[in-house]
Amino acid sequence: MVNYPSGVKQRNTVFLSKTSASDRGMVFEKDINQTNDYYLEINLAVIHKKPTPVQVVKVDYPSRNSAKIVEAYYKTPSTTDYNGIYKGKYLDFEAKESASLTSFPLKSIHPHQLKHLKMVAEHGAIAFVLFRFTKRNETYYVKAEDLLDYIQNTTKSSIPIQWFLQFGYPIPYNYVKPVDYLQIVDKIYF
Amino acid sequence: MVNYPSGVKQRNTVFLSKTSASDRGMVFEKDINQTNDYYLEINLAVIHKKPTPVQVVKVDYPSRNSAKIVEAYYKTPSTTDYNGIYKGKYLDFEAKESASLTSFPLKSIHPHQLKHLKMVAEHGAIAFVLFRFTKRNETYYVKAEDLLDYIQNTTKSSIPIQWFLQFGYPIPYNYVKPVDYLQIVDKIYF
Repeated sequence: MVNYPSGVKQRNTVFLSKTSASDRGMVFEKDINQTNDYYLEINLAVIHKKPTPVQVVKVDYPSRNSAKIVEAYYKTPSTTDYNGIYKGKYLDFEAKESASLTSFPLKSIHPHQLKHLKMVAEHGAIAFVLFRFTKRNETYYVKAEDLLDYIQNTTKSSIPIQWFLQFGYPIPYNYVKPVDYLQIVDKIYF
Repeated sequence: MVNYPSGVKQRNTVFLSKTSASDRGMVFEKDINQTNDYYLEINLAVIHKKPTPVQVVKVDYPSRNSAKIVEAYYKTPSTTDYNGIYKGKYLDFEAKESASLTSFPLKSIHPHQLKHLKMVAEHGAIAFVLFRFTKRNETYYVKAEDLLDYIQNTTKSSIPIQWFLQFGYPIPYNYVKPVDYLQIVDKIYF
């Protein structure tokens, strides 16, 4: 069980305990958030996760100044989850993970997220996707351009691990910055 | 009454009809979103509003694949509402409005939003705040640096309209791009 820093958040386990996929997703997300917090703390970069989009349908007002959402639904995100600024450059990425040992299913990346990555890359962004193979305990940085190129030229529904070994940049685990993707950004762009 | 493109969103009026301030806020937000949609459509810039942060407390599962949020609360945002990329640069802004004719209350801008604007500006972002005086029917672009400078050197709880006339850049209304802030960005930076 993940230990959340805030007492309130722990109540989210109502949700987490239902699906192990989401639970695993939370670990990767937590690792990325911790890395971003570290970057922010040492003033290296300002990168945040966007809030999860929620469609609010009904709100109650138990008192004059409080609003309680009583009916809402998760929406499909129209962009990637993370963006911000690093060394004056716009940076934009999505994070995905899979329990497979041999390949990454393409269906886990929404078409509008791919379209968004394509657009920002064309506008000069540092755009990428972080892939975590949970059972291999491996995380890869993949340039958006390379991913889009692969998808455009394949009929497969997944990306084999061999492709990641050839085109991806492995991100070694670090205790204070668990997903230190900026070291890859430095290697590629600076 | 605002006409939403999606049938589902209209149900939000349960919320809107409660507070006229939120209702007015939605008009300004709608104008900015329409402007961003226009920029996106002509591929001039990729700028999105971040989803409103919601603290989810309880989720029901009426069926295997559907999640219904039944208890949640609005959270104070930790960053600004809008960011993206324009001409290869990271762009970041917040939007605020007031019904006052003579000044803008500073309390409407959260301290962490000011801190965020200061940080991204220091990292090389195009950072600003859009102020709308609803009753004057005027919208001003204010550079984050100028706003932070004013706040640091004042004991007042508001910004007088005279200051906006001196330091702000008025944004003329345009039917297809109601808040064409990129024309100001061009004037200042390009």
